[in-house]
Amino acid sequence: MPPTIRLLEAPDFDNGFLATLANLSPVGLTPAEAERIWHLRKQAGVHTIVAEADGRIIGTASLILEQKFIHQGGSVGHIEDVAVHPDAGGHGIGSALVDHLTGLARERGCYKVILSCLDRLVPFYERLGFRRHDSGMRIDLKAV
Amino acid sequence: MPPTIRLLEAPDFDNGFLATLANLSPVGLTPAEAERIWHLRKQAGVHTIVAEADGRIIGTASLILEQKFIHQGGSVGHIEDVAVHPDAGGHGIGSALVDHLTGLARERGCYKVILSCLDRLVPFYERLGFRRHDSGMRIDLKAV
Repeated sequence: MPPTIRLLEAPDFDNGFLATLANLSPVGLTPAEAERIWHLRKQAGVHTIVAEADGRIIGTASLILEQKFIHQGGSVGHIEDVAVHPDAGGHGIGSALVDHLTGLARERGCYKVILSCLDRLVPFYERLGFRRHDSGMRIDLKAV
Repeated sequence: MPPTIRLLEAPDFDNGFLATLANLSPVGLTPAEAERIWHLRKQAGVHTIVAEADGRIIGTASLILEQKFIHQGGSVGHIEDVAVHPDAGGHGIGSALVDHLTGLARERGCYKVILSCLDRLVPFYERLGFRRHDSGMRIDLKAV
């Protein structure tokens, strides 16, 4: 059965969400701490979705909606933190999550969706309709 | 005299801010419309700064602060929409704006600042301490 893609809910913090994210980067939060951050993120307009299969969270991704001054006040969707549980790779979960967020951005009237990815993932995103447009730059301000 | 770098204020909409941004992309907003969007952006946690010289706005850039679940709930700064007025290029205004936002992100405890730029601008950001990390991908959802 294909996974259900839906918005993150509070019970997910005890049900595979943090283990799924940890496959992307260290998390280091208790479920209660993560729930507090979730509320702050929602207030800032960040949408976090999950993929659920057999009652467990096996994927997640987030969308930041940014209203611009340019393009007549149009909005841009930023996809962030696409992660799939280590036991669930290779089944199209990541693709389903990205497609879902692209659809959500379209519903919200965004004129584009952007994301940064490691160079080796460019072909993955090209298969989902994205094209390489520019370079992702970073500066580290402290060790994490 | 070097420009003053400060947060965007309401009078700036009638004083060069929109012409500065239009050097990046078409704007198509009246000052009143832009001011309404500015309030929405502030509510979402977006900081827009300007460079002012001789009483006119000659540069702008924005910072989105995003609190993550990963890295113990650490925050990331996203630099967006760095623009310099066409009459003011080549005087280090863009560098001063990016440095200012990097400092603001540091004050807010961000563990990194990221941005996407055209490949030809990679050396510019490298001089400001950034390094190329990944690829910027985009999908267009409607014509702008």
